[in-house]
Amino acid sequence: MTEAGPGADFLQLSPASAPARGLTGWLADAIRAAIIDGRLGTGTSLPATRLLADDLGVSRGVVVEAYQRLADEGLVSARPGTGTKVSGLLPRIAARPGTGEAGTGEGGAGEAGLGEAGLGEAVRAVPSLLPQPWRARAELDLSPGVPDLSGFPRAAWLRAERSVLDRASVAELGYGDPRGNQSLRRELAGWLTRTRGLRAAPDDIIVVSGVAQALALLAQWLTARGHTRIAVEDPGSLGSREELAYWGLTAAPVPVDEHGLQTAHLAGSGLQAALLTPAHQFPTGVVLAPQRRRELLDWAVAADALIVEDDYDAEYRYDRAPVPALQTAAPGHVAYAGTTSKTLAPGMRLGWLVPPARMHADLVEAKHAADLGSPALPQLVLARLIATGELEQHIRTVRKRQRRRRDALLGELRERLPEARVQGIPAGLHLLITFPALALDDRDLAERIHRAGVLVHPLSWHRQRPGPPGLVLGYAAHTPDQLREAAGRIARAVTG
Amino acid sequence: MTEAGPGADFLQLSPASAPARGLTGWLADAIRAAIIDGRLGTGTSLPATRLLADDLGVSRGVVVEAYQRLADEGLVSARPGTGTKVSGLLPRIAARPGTGEAGTGEGGAGEAGLGEAGLGEAVRAVPSLLPQPWRARAELDLSPGVPDLSGFPRAAWLRAERSVLDRASVAELGYGDPRGNQSLRRELAGWLTRTRGLRAAPDDIIVVSGVAQALALLAQWLTARGHTRIAVEDPGSLGSREELAYWGLTAAPVPVDEHGLQTAHLAGSGLQAALLTPAHQFPTGVVLAPQRRRELLDWAVAADALIVEDDYDAEYRYDRAPVPALQTAAPGHVAYAGTTSKTLAPGMRLGWLVPPARMHADLVEAKHAADLGSPALPQLVLARLIATGELEQHIRTVRKRQRRRRDALLGELRERLPEARVQGIPAGLHLLITFPALALDDRDLAERIHRAGVLVHPLSWHRQRPGPPGLVLGYAAHTPDQLREAAGRIARAVTG
Repeated sequence: MTEAGPGADFLQLSPASAPARGLTGWLADAIRAAIIDGRLGTGTSLPATRLLADDLGVSRGVVVEAYQRLADEGLVSARPGTGTKVSGLLPRIAARPGTGEAGTGEGGAGEAGLGEAGLGEAVRAVPSLLPQPWRARAELDLSPGVPDLSGFPRAAWLRAERSVLDRASVAELGYGDPRGNQSLRRELAGWLTRTRGLRAAPDDIIVVSGVAQALALLAQWLTARGHTRIAVEDPGSLGSREELAYWGLTAAPVPVDEHGLQTAHLAGSGLQAALLTPAHQFPTGVVLAPQRRRELLDWAVAADALIVEDDYDAEYRYDRAPVPALQTAAPGHVAYAGTTSKTLAPGMRLGWLVPPARMHADLVEAKHAADLGSPALPQLVLARLIATGELEQHIRTVRKRQRRRRDALLGELRERLPEARVQGIPAGLHLLITFPALALDDRDLAERIHRAGVLVHPLSWHRQRPGPPGLVLGYAAHTPDQLREAAGRIARAVTG
Repeated sequence: MTEAGPGADFLQLSPASAPARGLTGWLADAIRAAIIDGRLGTGTSLPATRLLADDLGVSRGVVVEAYQRLADEGLVSARPGTGTKVSGLLPRIAARPGTGEAGTGEGGAGEAGLGEAGLGEAVRAVPSLLPQPWRARAELDLSPGVPDLSGFPRAAWLRAERSVLDRASVAELGYGDPRGNQSLRRELAGWLTRTRGLRAAPDDIIVVSGVAQALALLAQWLTARGHTRIAVEDPGSLGSREELAYWGLTAAPVPVDEHGLQTAHLAGSGLQAALLTPAHQFPTGVVLAPQRRRELLDWAVAADALIVEDDYDAEYRYDRAPVPALQTAAPGHVAYAGTTSKTLAPGMRLGWLVPPARMHADLVEAKHAADLGSPALPQLVLARLIATGELEQHIRTVRKRQRRRRDALLGELRERLPEARVQGIPAGLHLLITFPALALDDRDLAERIHRAGVLVHPLSWHRQRPGPPGLVLGYAAHTPDQLREAAGRIARAVTG
């Protein structure tokens, strides 16, 4: 205690430094920082909630909630009788993955056929999989990954571009830093720390042409070191698998259940890399459960593995604060990739990659060899939209709109299809519905729905191995009325 | 030792091939070339100076100075007791995709080669090769490849962007065609046919992130088919060579004389690919002579080879109509690549690739796997600038300005340095001056000029093999007065 007011010896916490209405977040942040920088080692017991609340002069609920948040992130665990303990922090820098044998040389997917694009960043376009008659546009296209392009902030973009063209230095239009424009990296560092809890300084970030390029660069890094396989979620993104195959990596399917990736399959698999969408799994919509987060990170440390975190629609979280990025807990083992495809438009082709420090120089070299660096003007415009707060404002607006859309679709599904189970509700831009009581082929079902003018993806399209049937419904691009109409037609197709 | 005279097993060096008064430069060049093409890997010890001097029959001072020069450039380092070793500042050829060999470890070009850029599309930025003291900005920077960025048509660009944002369809902001936006490809087809005689329909064109990405895609295509070498111009672009090396292609130097590439070297070489800058060779400025064009095309047909035509500054032709692109004569054997880097700004990262029809689908696939496609907005804006004639108007204005700049530099050089021979006059944005009557080391000369506040490139920097000295002078970024001032200082350095 100091004379300045209530406070705790524990981490020298002083609630006077907390924002008035954000005590929980402040406390969780402070403890998380201490775990990450090693002040609180693995196994350390956190103070009892009542004790710390008294010390801090805050309500016990604040401490309980902060602990719960950290438990959700996998940073601490609570067991009856033993209190809350730090679950273990991962070594920041581990040895390089073992270099093994050479890749086979021949481009694996050289012929695989990545034709026209059309779906989502995480989905990527695989029209080869669309049955031929389906390629005709459906009246209501609920393909996941199609964002609400009508919401692109054209006026704000143009205003920002005018400002950029007024002010950009000559050097900013020249051959730039292959890592990306410095002002954008500075803004991104703040943005990602604020919104995703990321641990990233401007110089840690590489600006890329969307998550797709991030995957390409990471795949080159892995294959150059002899890796030939990478764990992927099953069901998962076919587009990502095809891209990885082009770059010489075979996608090893790991099942996803209602808690996310079944991490138990990783241990002993011999795999040393995994691609995940932990914030909102594509296509099941589940958030990786705290226990699975822990197991995943433990595996990464034990196997000296790389986790590729595709945070493709993390901005859309409706019902509570988003779970921080995996990268937060293990920056030395996670390559974090994000994109503007869902917040602005897929046509932006603008994203970011935050790799472990030991990979950074190699990935910058790969980016340089790919295209010398991303285009200057869009980078400068995005930097300005972040700096002025307009991007944040835009996302808030879109988030509200998307929540209404989700609610409309969800409400109608619950009313018309009470037997269906709905997943992926709290976040993202799509839902998954399954039918525990029905034995059906989701392709047949999707075909019946398509005949009713609604395009949805059967879950099977996104599977590598057989599994329970389901339908993936993207709601981002349609109004509540359209979505209710679509839900009605889907219900008739299921029950009819 | 060979009967031809003194020589060294080390790199099969023979001083008989060295210019009479430039042994130091010759030796440094030969070692640098071996480092660049991977014959001397990171960590390799150079022979002891006394030993090598004895083998070569030169004074030890020559070897010491050559080593010192390479150390100044950061290519080798000397430590007491361990001798001189290759520091490996160049891209890790071993870590490139395709070969599967593991990287050699720390200290590659990940950091060094890739920092701030500064040279040209064809040159690409390789500040690792700039001697350390030179990296400080010179008062007058006549590095070739630096365009006149102050001339970027900001108002026209913004007008076009406003129009695009008013009109763009929702689909145009979504995941696009990996070949590029259709309206841009349509405009480019007309533009390239009109200005370069190209034989290209909209669907033949792939929009890319500059010539750099075109080279990356083509290199992937070649290595996937077992090619390991590609002919390049010597002197030529170090940046291109480094990029090709990243992608697994070794650059086989073919000498350039006043008629362009010495095509006679191609026949019987076993090579099946060549990268050229026929319209305005970088850095000598020569236009490929008609006879050489014919021989080159004959070789391509006979050897079933691929010619990569880098048309990087073809828009700048001052004194007569430009020579049509090579592609015009043999579209089945030429992959044509162009860029907006010299007409708009390098930071645009926007170019186009017109490959032979048989390669088209593979290259689209490679583009898709690289980044799904180039960003939509800049494509739409460029399409509009072509459609409205504003791009053409802009180029006409810049061409007139550049001609005045060229005339100013040329006039002053002719008056102050009548003994110098000037090449590359009719086209492009740089000149080459050589000194037939003088025996000199162009690096020493460039260093004297740099001390006078003017940065020019010694021709040797762009050579793989030794050759006559010269200076490369880029004039695009300076006013006539500045250029006359620079010429005066250059003349004083030469004659003083």
